[in-house]
Amino acid sequence: MMDARLQTLLDKQEIYELMVKYTDRIDANDPVGAASCFAPDGVGAYGTECKGRKAIGDLLGTILLKYLATSHYLSNVSIKVDGDRATAMSYIQTFHRMKNKETMFTYGRWLDDLVRLDGEWFFARREVRRVGSINFPDGDFIHPGHPGRLYREAS
Amino acid sequence: MMDARLQTLLDKQEIYELMVKYTDRIDANDPVGAASCFAPDGVGAYGTECKGRKAIGDLLGTILLKYLATSHYLSNVSIKVDGDRATAMSYIQTFHRMKNKETMFTYGRWLDDLVRLDGEWFFARREVRRVGSINFPDGDFIHPGHPGRLYREAS
Amino acid sequence: MMDARLQTLLDKQEIYELMVKYTDRIDANDPVGAASCFAPDGVGAYGTECKGRKAIGDLLGTILLKYLATSHYLSNVSIKVDGDRATAMSYIQTFHRMKNKETMFTYGRWLDDLVRLDGEWFFARREVRRVGSINFPDGDFIHPGHPGRLYREAS
Repeated sequence: MMDARLQTLLDKQEIYELMVKYTDRIDANDPVGAASCFAPDGVGAYGTECKGRKAIGDLLGTILLKYLATSHYLSNVSIKVDGDRATAMSYIQTFHRMKNKETMFTYGRWLDDLVRLDGEWFFARREVRRVGSINFPDGDFIHPGHPGRLYREAS
Repeated sequence: MMDARLQTLLDKQEIYELMVKYTDRIDANDPVGAASCFAPDGVGAYGTECKGRKAIGDLLGTILLKYLATSHYLSNVSIKVDGDRATAMSYIQTFHRMKNKETMFTYGRWLDDLVRLDGEWFFARREVRRVGSINFPDGDFIHPGHPGRLYREAS
Repeated sequence: MMDARLQTLLDKQEIYELMVKYTDRIDANDPVGAASCFAPDGVGAYGTECKGRKAIGDLLGTILLKYLATSHYLSNVSIKVDGDRATAMSYIQTFHRMKNKETMFTYGRWLDDLVRLDGEWFFARREVRRVGSINFPDGDFIHPGHPGRLYREAS
């Protein structure tokens, strides 16, 4: 019987590797591979919400056609494991080279619900939440910001 | 009795999660939450040094009022654990959206001393050490650079 | 006898720390220290391939003389361990302050073969593979891109 703290460490590593696999498949221009990181009934919340691997892959496939190259840099990974469920927040910076050769950068977070099915972790729900950007098509001041960001004024 | 290498791995994960919590609280515009990552007599060295959670929170609160949004991207985490003390160097990239809507980027390091109190890790001392920046108010060529950077000339 | 999954976790942490040590030594302008992360007969594939610590250190030393400061931000670390060998892909963003005070950014991947010698991990082969850049001397549209990137067209 493994120490519970070590089991949690193994789970966090597996979830981290799922997140890395997702970035690898996105940046390989492989929307079907990226969608396979979701549970069969998983939800991708990319502004638009879509449910199921087919719908997620279709949406990602359309988005990825806009770019010559992408890089999704993952960091600040925070995971809470509870048996076969988990939640996570992670940070994401992106470099996008658009087909018109311009460059877009985004600065954001991923909010994840995860589920373990037959011993393997998947995204049950993955939400992109942007904090800022440079050259975002819809404007750089429309982003919802960091989850739970407080409002404060000078006293 | 846990294998010492595994105990160290658990300690490193806890310290990593403390670093992530700090970025989360900073980027949530929550200076009190960020200051709670320090030991009660902890020191924050942000150019100015301040000691204790109250002083650290006050300084962070003043700094954070300058920005509409911030993102502190943590990477390259190197930790040495020695019982209930530890030291760490990590890398940090920041995105800052200023209230005038301009963008500032910084590229740096965090140098940390850590202490475990009642089973929980805290920053005993945290020093920001910048290597470079874009649009830093005091200029982009004033930074002390990477810790221990060597001077070399073409031979 | 340690659980194999935990041994793998320890190995991954050691390999991650080797990668961090490499960035630390590069950014400290210490090409000899960076080269010491390679096996004695290791290969560095930096566009040009060079073999052995001496050749790698010489090349890195020449490259590093071009910059006032560098930061190599490591993320998305994916490692497969197989006994005393391992392979890895990781993501890398760089900030370079050139001696003419201009700024260069690169966005890429590191592809590594690793080997454990006398209980310590080293790079057997390390290949830099860029995906994009800003201000790269040879141009920003010459990079090979993400490993295995697929070609897809709108249907």
